[in-house]
Amino acid sequence: MQCLWLDNKQLTIREVPVPHPAPGDALVRVRLAGVCGTDLALCSGYSPFTGILGHEFVGEVMSAPTHTQWEGRRVVGEINVPCHDCPTCAAGRTQHCPQRSVLGIQNHPGVFAELVTLPVANLHEVPEGVSDDQAVFTEPLAAALRITEQVSLTPQDRVLLIGAGRLGQLIAQVLVATGCQVHALAKHTVQRNALRERPVKLLLPEDLPPATPSFDVVVEATGSPGGFAQARRAVRPGGTLVLNSTYPGTTEVDLSSLVVNEITVIGSRCGPFDKALALLAEGKVDPLPFIETTFPLQNAALAIEHARRPAAFKVLIRPPS
Amino acid sequence: MQCLWLDNKQLTIREVPVPHPAPGDALVRVRLAGVCGTDLALCSGYSPFTGILGHEFVGEVMSAPTHTQWEGRRVVGEINVPCHDCPTCAAGRTQHCPQRSVLGIQNHPGVFAELVTLPVANLHEVPEGVSDDQAVFTEPLAAALRITEQVSLTPQDRVLLIGAGRLGQLIAQVLVATGCQVHALAKHTVQRNALRERPVKLLLPEDLPPATPSFDVVVEATGSPGGFAQARRAVRPGGTLVLNSTYPGTTEVDLSSLVVNEITVIGSRCGPFDKALALLAEGKVDPLPFIETTFPLQNAALAIEHARRPAAFKVLIRPPS
Repeated sequence: MQCLWLDNKQLTIREVPVPHPAPGDALVRVRLAGVCGTDLALCSGYSPFTGILGHEFVGEVMSAPTHTQWEGRRVVGEINVPCHDCPTCAAGRTQHCPQRSVLGIQNHPGVFAELVTLPVANLHEVPEGVSDDQAVFTEPLAAALRITEQVSLTPQDRVLLIGAGRLGQLIAQVLVATGCQVHALAKHTVQRNALRERPVKLLLPEDLPPATPSFDVVVEATGSPGGFAQARRAVRPGGTLVLNSTYPGTTEVDLSSLVVNEITVIGSRCGPFDKALALLAEGKVDPLPFIETTFPLQNAALAIEHARRPAAFKVLIRPPS
Repeated sequence: MQCLWLDNKQLTIREVPVPHPAPGDALVRVRLAGVCGTDLALCSGYSPFTGILGHEFVGEVMSAPTHTQWEGRRVVGEINVPCHDCPTCAAGRTQHCPQRSVLGIQNHPGVFAELVTLPVANLHEVPEGVSDDQAVFTEPLAAALRITEQVSLTPQDRVLLIGAGRLGQLIAQVLVATGCQVHALAKHTVQRNALRERPVKLLLPEDLPPATPSFDVVVEATGSPGGFAQARRAVRPGGTLVLNSTYPGTTEVDLSSLVVNEITVIGSRCGPFDKALALLAEGKVDPLPFIETTFPLQNAALAIEHARRPAAFKVLIRPPS
């Protein structure tokens, strides 16, 4: 089968053998896949990964030898594959299993391919009313929803989103759905335009009062190192700073000022697929405006290049059906 | 009156005029004061402060013109003096008032002096059964208790305390009182010995498994920049890192790993005086073993020097009575 293969920052379209599902696994035909900032970071060497890239997808179960009832279903899949055999898994924290593999990120072939195997336990059936174009956003939407599991947001809370790209736009819609007062700092015009029809107050960097940081919660989703300092300045004493960006390297942080100002910093990653699918089915989140373009799998390397352009929204990859 | 005066890293014993209580203030005679890590940091230039140093004290109200019922009472005092007139104060977050002064730390004369003024609203009467030697620990004990307001601790939680000095020892006792499983990493023998009689498992740096960070909560109270990296390595994915140290300068932090591992970092500062006094009155926390020595006010500069020695516990300063 055809796939997009990453090896030492080099991307190539390759022919590889069709994978075979192990017991408990399903073989899934990828209908549509999405390019994420993490894919770009992996291509830049953020973390060592050699193999088939990609982890956002919607597909169809071709075979599931030990769970035949799943065959034929349209599915999305959680990306962490835990060992189910360590103290972390036993404590119910399978998302953080230290032995886990991660779809297209760590020790697990990804979804920029015609076929992929994944444990049936990772799959969620896509409701009929949710199209492939919507369902392919389930994984990043779940990541956006993770914030609402970690921070309790009320209509009294003044929340600032910094960064309104691929993930930031979904976060903005999730924040609006909580009823909190959403503000956003977006670098690019296309990002600001996408927020104009929503109850989001758009800010410019000069609107952030450096002397009186005033946001109860600041969500940093710029995907770049500079976002942290901006977020730190914007959060009020006693407030919460949610981090969603991953990038190579370290950042200089004044930890003492976190102490004096009693700031809480929360790292946020993978979230609830069931809630994400429900929001899509109910139409409470609309990801369709963020589809930039769709490339056929044979041009997947171009898709990655396209996704890398500043202010690019979601680039999709479609394997041959 | 006599006081210990800090000016540009220089300490001197000075005669200054007796302060006059403004409306709402009390004039308090300092019975006993304690030297804190923050005092040492201020002497090293951590933050600009010129004036009378010191913020941990127990004293007696000499006069309170607008609140005469307080006269004669033995008291401890909260260190933040808010403006009560800004949005932060209106929101009930007076501890973080941006216009606040802070006793002996910021725009407010401190307690290494014969007399000090403080708003009556900041005062807490010391219960009869609590001695001056105990009561002088109220402020740092309240800071230790702040952790239990920010993090919910259960008997299932494996908690690691890094740093067992002046503040760390109080934190250890507070953690034990919550019923959680307390472990401690203490640099100095005297610190380890102080923990031996308590239900605290003492660890050595080589006991920290770098491959499988396993603590649900790690409290960093070393007071120095090196503690963060150690704490970061020890906390499990999805766990919580509580920061109690303030020191000059910044620290290199891998923020992306906080995201991937969904770590929560909480800055922790000032806590509840009422709960601290209650714990002292009930004998649930015993600070007396941590009194290193007591200097008369006229030798307060020596007290600061003494407190600076490695592994020094609490050094007290006693004004003439």
